This record gives sequence, structure tokens and C-alpha cells, in this order.
Amino acid sequence: MNIVFLSGGSGKRLWPLSNDVRSKQFIKILKAPDGSYESMLQRMYREVMEVAPDADVTITTSANQVSPIRNQIGVKAGISVEPCRRDTFPAIALACMFLKDVRNLAESEPVVVCPVDPFVEKEYFEGLKHLSEIQGNPKEKANITLMGIEPTYPSEKYGYIIPKDKEALSEVTEFKEKPDEETAKKYIEQGALWNAGVFAFKLGYLVNKAHELIDFKDYYDLLEKYESVEKISFDYAVLEKEKNINVTRFNGEWRDLGTWNTLVSAMEENTIGKAIMADTCENVHILNELDVPVLALGLKDVVISASPEGILVTDKHQSSYMKPYVDKIHQEIMFAEKSWGEYKVIDVEDNSLTIRVTLHAGHKMNYHSHELRDEVWTVVEGEGIAVINGRKREVGPGEVIHLPRGCKHSIKATTELKVIEVQMGDNIKAEDKIRYEYKWE
Amino acid sequence: MNIVFLSGGSGKRLWPLSNDVRSKQFIKILKAPDGSYESMLQRMYREVMEVAPDADVTITTSANQVSPIRNQIGVKAGISVEPCRRDTFPAIALACMFLKDVRNLAESEPVVVCPVDPFVEKEYFEGLKHLSEIQGNPKEKANITLMGIEPTYPSEKYGYIIPKDKEALSEVTEFKEKPDEETAKKYIEQGALWNAGVFAFKLGYLVNKAHELIDFKDYYDLLEKYESVEKISFDYAVLEKEKNINVTRFNGEWRDLGTWNTLVSAMEENTIGKAIMADTCENVHILNELDVPVLALGLKDVVISASPEGILVTDKHQSSYMKPYVDKIHQEIMFAEKSWGEYKVIDVEDNSLTIRVTLHAGHKMNYHSHELRDEVWTVVEGEGIAVINGRKREVGPGEVIHLPRGCKHSIKATTELKVIEVQMGDNIKAEDKIRYEYKWE
Repeated sequence: MNIVFLSGGSGKRLWPLSNDVRSKQFIKILKAPDGSYESMLQRMYREVMEVAPDADVTITTSANQVSPIRNQIGVKAGISVEPCRRDTFPAIALACMFLKDVRNLAESEPVVVCPVDPFVEKEYFEGLKHLSEIQGNPKEKANITLMGIEPTYPSEKYGYIIPKDKEALSEVTEFKEKPDEETAKKYIEQGALWNAGVFAFKLGYLVNKAHELIDFKDYYDLLEKYESVEKISFDYAVLEKEKNINVTRFNGEWRDLGTWNTLVSAMEENTIGKAIMADTCENVHILNELDVPVLALGLKDVVISASPEGILVTDKHQSSYMKPYVDKIHQEIMFAEKSWGEYKVIDVEDNSLTIRVTLHAGHKMNYHSHELRDEVWTVVEGEGIAVINGRKREVGPGEVIHLPRGCKHSIKATTELKVIEVQMGDNIKAEDKIRYEYKWE
Repeated sequence: MNIVFLSGGSGKRLWPLSNDVRSKQFIKILKAPDGSYESMLQRMYREVMEVAPDADVTITTSANQVSPIRNQIGVKAGISVEPCRRDTFPAIALACMFLKDVRNLAESEPVVVCPVDPFVEKEYFEGLKHLSEIQGNPKEKANITLMGIEPTYPSEKYGYIIPKDKEALSEVTEFKEKPDEETAKKYIEQGALWNAGVFAFKLGYLVNKAHELIDFKDYYDLLEKYESVEKISFDYAVLEKEKNINVTRFNGEWRDLGTWNTLVSAMEENTIGKAIMADTCENVHILNELDVPVLALGLKDVVISASPEGILVTDKHQSSYMKPYVDKIHQEIMFAEKSWGEYKVIDVEDNSLTIRVTLHAGHKMNYHSHELRDEVWTVVEGEGIAVINGRKREVGPGEVIHLPRGCKHSIKATTELKVIEVQMGDNIKAEDKIRYEYKWE
């Protein structure tokens, strides 16, 4: 099975756990079979690999998501990096050209596309496999096979697919935009399905569509001119114009976890992290990423979420209205998970910034220097090799390294390495960084 | 006016702002005339000095409160340090012996005693002055003059004073223990007053009482044997047995701010610190001591309080039931304000602890060493003098000092000094500290 996951943009609707550098699909709130917590991305990937161990997964996303993706699911999945956001049609076109020109996939191969962030049950993945099987049949007539979701209520939030009949596989008569509740009821009576953006086609079909709608030669050319490509959704560019579509029906659990209210409904226990909840709390969820405890008393229908970015306390139903308030918060990024490890701002003063840097074993920093700040590293955990102005030095716990401005430096972790970095200067900023080549041999 | 403030013990009812080292009277939540925030201690002291600029203030408290008191109100007030807690009678006796033997106050002098932590309006201080004037009259017959509080509701939380009549100054007929509501109503119909623990006497009266009830010679002797003194309240030891008491009436605002619900009622604005509150919040208070914002949406009657110790989110009425939950939290002290400055734990790892130490100008650390940990100091702000194994060294921003285990060290702030201290070792604990004498010339 060839599957393309659409990994959507960053957003603030799940602040303080999502922000400009962390998207909801990376938040670890789902219980994995081994008892640890996994993110929606990790669950999707794990479940796909379970139903189709030889699946070829490609994730289409923006550059800033490459690190968290690699960090969470490793290097086996392919990543098609969108140079900028151009909506779903260009993203899918780019991913398909990547499959054709980089992965050398035959044009007769079926490709399944689906978003990475719905919360679904196991049968969903069987449904994806089924889509792939349908389009994998050389005799299949439909250009696109959709998986529609059996509606559980007359939602105004989704587009609807009107199938010709109520069979397990049916021709599609029409697509409907998000309706009002009354109209939605009528659609449902006709046997309509939610359009969840899940579909399959033969690679060649989409390659042709791409060339039809965008002027480019191959993957590399499309990548280069991506910024000039028109923003357009797959639904608008392809689905609504295509006459030859059929649809399967999925009647299992499928939910969009886009607000705190819906996100916490996917939690198996009411708290994650250090939390104490009094018996007087009712329908309260706590997600705490800080080292200190959260104590909740006498609350009802409330979500509490704390991270190094801030603290949210919200009524569950009000949580969908938080964006304008979060937009008011202008703040440095205090915490980030990267493929090489993570960093966390632990102290901010007028002329200094102290961070804790964690480097995973085998990973290293870029070799770089700063013009406007001095740094002091104190290694507190692990072993590694530091390079200071070209000279290598083995370091371990207790090692202190002075890095005056101008000094070129890097560090490579032999084992998981933790360093307290004190940055000092009148004008400390992320942009103050000059990169150099360094051969680690 | 001689006034003794009783500065009560630490408590957890206002966690995370109060804990084993910080009591509620030190929490800065009241608006001072200059627009800054002040604590209850600071307000009491400021208001007393306003009505009686020559007041001689003594604060009776335990050793661990000396630093915050000095830090908040300076060195002009006397402090009578209780070697251990022995309830109010021994504390008042010790403070009075301090006034007699250390301050050489005449036995004919009036002394006013009151707790440091009620929330009161300005007229209260005129009331204290009035008590002092009554007992300052050599002809005054009553041994004790109380200030009773006009009840605003039939409270079950306070003891009641039954006066002979409803005059401004009246003899006391009887004291009543905390009653049930019905009984309280009857007391109030009789003109009863709340016993707020506010009273005055002539110093000699209390000195005699002390000698009568405790076997000791003078202040120094009492201090030495304080631990063996019986725990007993002033009400039980003195008030309930004394026949010759009168009482004044105070009918202004007087409130005990012992729970979050009552504490926040004294706040002029609904938020202190970084906070964003949506319009959908109703009767919500936020006190945030952290550097990151708190965002609240759709809440009603809730208090949110965040400090380096933890985060509390509580229904206002439930806040009085928090103690058993806070007792479950076993945690290192993450933040402390001292007379010399403050420290804040900023990172905790298995074998390291990073703290930010702030030293006020002119202050210094004890000269000390550690047996089980190495430390690294990075000075990030200010100028000072470090002493390492007896050798002095001037230090400023960017200076890094290695302190391997066994190394004797101290630092003195020339200007306000901030140091990032990384502690490293298998067994980092506060007790690992050997103190030495050092003559700073």
C-alpha cells in the first residue's frame, strides 16, 4: 500500500501544547499498547504498519515539521517537503511527483491519501487498505475511490458526499459544501456521507491532473516553482469536477480532535503528567508537561493544560473560541522538540538566557558561532565530543566550556547528552548564528 | 505606641503561594498607594507607622520568617524569635520579656498585641492607637482592653466576646467559644463581638502573668528554656480567667484572608501577573508568578494561582478544602525569598540541579563547601567578590567559577548579582553544606 499522509499546519487552537512550532498531531495524549503515550501521528503510522506491514508511507508537510516527524516515527517514512503552504491539491501533486520521480513508483500503482490527524478506530485502517485494493485493480473504472464516513449527527462542520445508493461501494452523484443542520438532516436521509478527505487513485491519474492544472516538468521543477503555484484545494481542483468517482462507507469511530474539548475526549485517563484532582471535580481533564504539580478542586467541564509556553484553564465548550486570545500572546518559543533532541528555555534575564539542551545519541549541533553573545556550557549528563575552533575535546558530566563571541563551536552526543547553556549579551536572538562546514569524519 | 504583631506559622491553605517557607502574610496581593503590590505584613506595618509614626513595632515569629520580614519591612522593626512554636501565650510572654529586658521598656508602658494577617481598613489602626491610649492611662482599672469586631454575620468561625452593654467601651462579661449559627445569632442580639485577638495591657501585667505561669528568670532564660514551655493559648491562659477586662468596638472592615476565596476578595484587580481572561469568565481571579501567561476561558467563581511550586485551579468555595490534597504534594522547595535575595530552581535532572541565585547589593552567602556535589557558577548580572578557598576574586557578567566538591566558597554582591548555579552529583541535598568562618576584612 502506498499512502500519503497530509500533515497539516501549525495552529494555536490547542495552545499551550500547540504553537508555531508544534502541531496537534505531535501531542502525545493517546495510550499506546505498551502503556506509554503516543501522538496522533505515531498512532496513525503504527496502525497503518499493522494492517499493511509493507506499506510505503509518505508524509507531505512543511519544513518545520520534518524534525518532529523524524523524531516521532523515525526515518522509514518518506517526507515530501512543501517549500510553502499551497493548500491540498499542490501538496498532493508534489507528493505524487515525489513518488513518481524520486521513489520511481509505477503510474499504475494505487495511492491512498488521508489526513494525519483524525482520531479513528482500527477498522479505519482496514478501510484504507480496501481503498488501495480497489484502485489496485487494473480493471477499476472509477478514477477516484473515496472513503465516506457514516454521519453520527447532522454536522455543519463537514462537506457531504451524495452516493447513488446505499451499497458498500457506490457511485458518487454529487458533493455538497458544509450545510446548515436542516439541510444536513436531509442529506443524511438520502444516505449521504461525510467527506473526510480520504481517497485513493492510480498514481498516473494524479500525475496527469497535475500536469493539466500546473505548468511544470518533473518533481524537481515543481519543487522549485512551488511558491508560484496557485493555492487550491483538492476538493475544488479535482473532486468536484471529476465525474467518475465511487465511494466506500466507513461506519466506525472517526473524530476530528481540533479543539481541547474533542482532544481530551480521546484521553484514556483524566490526567497526564503531575496532577492531583479532588473528588469534587467532574469531567475535568489535566495535561501537564511541567515538572510541578497541578491541583484542581471543585471544577466541572474544564480542561487544564500547562506547558513551558503557558497555562490554559478553559471551560470545555468555550475552548473552541480561544484563538483570538491566544493570538494576543506574543512570546518567545520556550520549548521545542527537534529530530536531534530538544531545547527548553529555563531562565530569562535582561542580558542572559539559560537553556537546557538535550542531544540524542549520535546527533550533533551545526558548527557555528555567534557575533553578539558569549555562551557557557555545563555538561550535566552524558558523554560527547565538543569542537571548539576546530579542536576536538571529549566531554562528560561536570565539563564546563567557555564560548566567547566569535568562537566556532559544536557538540556531538556519544550518549544522550544534556547541557545547561547560559547565553550572555545585550542582544540575544536566534538569528545571531553563523554556520560553518565541519567534517566530523 | 508599642505594638506586638503575631506573625503566624506557615501553612498550605494558600498553596502554591504559601508553603513551608512562605506564609500568607508575605504574599504580595494588595495594591500599595504607589501602585505596586504589597503583602499583608507590609500593609500592616505601613498603616501603623502612618497613624503612629513613632510606634515601636515588635514582631514575634519563628526563625524561618526573619528573612522575609527583614526583606519586606526592613530592619526598623524588632523581631522576637520563638525558638519553636508554643502557641500564643508563650509567644506573647517572650515578646514582652524582650520588650522589658532587651528594649528596656517600663512596666507601666501599654503594649498592643494583634495578628499580622487580617485584612482591615484604615480605621482599624486608629482603634489600635485607642487601645494603647486606654491602657496608657495610669488610672485605667482594666487589666486588659480588647478590641472586639462588630459581627457582620453569625459566623461559626470566631469566638465571641459578651460585653456588659453596647457602649463604645464596656466591661466584658464573658467569652464564648466558636458557636453554631443559631447560638451566634443569639450572641449577636445581645451585642456580642468577634474576638479577633486584638488587645492591650500594661507591660508589667503580662510580665507578672508570665512569671506566674512559667518558671523562668528573664528574657534570656525564657528563650533558653522555651522548648520546655507548655503550649497554651493566650485566650485560655489569660483572657478566660481574667475578671477585669474591658472592650472597645470596631465596626469597620475586618476579614481573615485564610482561604483563597477570602484572599482574592482583597485584590483590587482580577489578575496579578501575566494573565489573559476571556469575557466569558465571571468572578475569576488569577495570580500568576510565572514568566509565562495564564489564559482563562468560560470559567465562573474560580481561582487560578501559579508559582514555581505548582499550579492551583479551584472553585472558590471549594478552596477551603484543599489542605488534604496539598499534603499529598511532596516536593522540593522550588523558590524562596530571603533577606539576602532569592533562589529559584530552574531545572531538575537525575544528577543535577540548576538554580538562579539573586543576591541583593551588600549581601553575601555563608562561606561553605559541599561534600557530595560540584558546582559551576556563571555570573549573568551584576558585580561582586567571590572567595574560593580563601582567595578573593572580583567577578562580573560572564565570569565562570568552578567549585569542585570540598572547595570552600562564598560570594558577596557589590551590586545586585545574579548567578546561574549548576549543581552536579549523585546525591544533591540541602543538608550537604559545611559552614566556615570567613572574615570579609
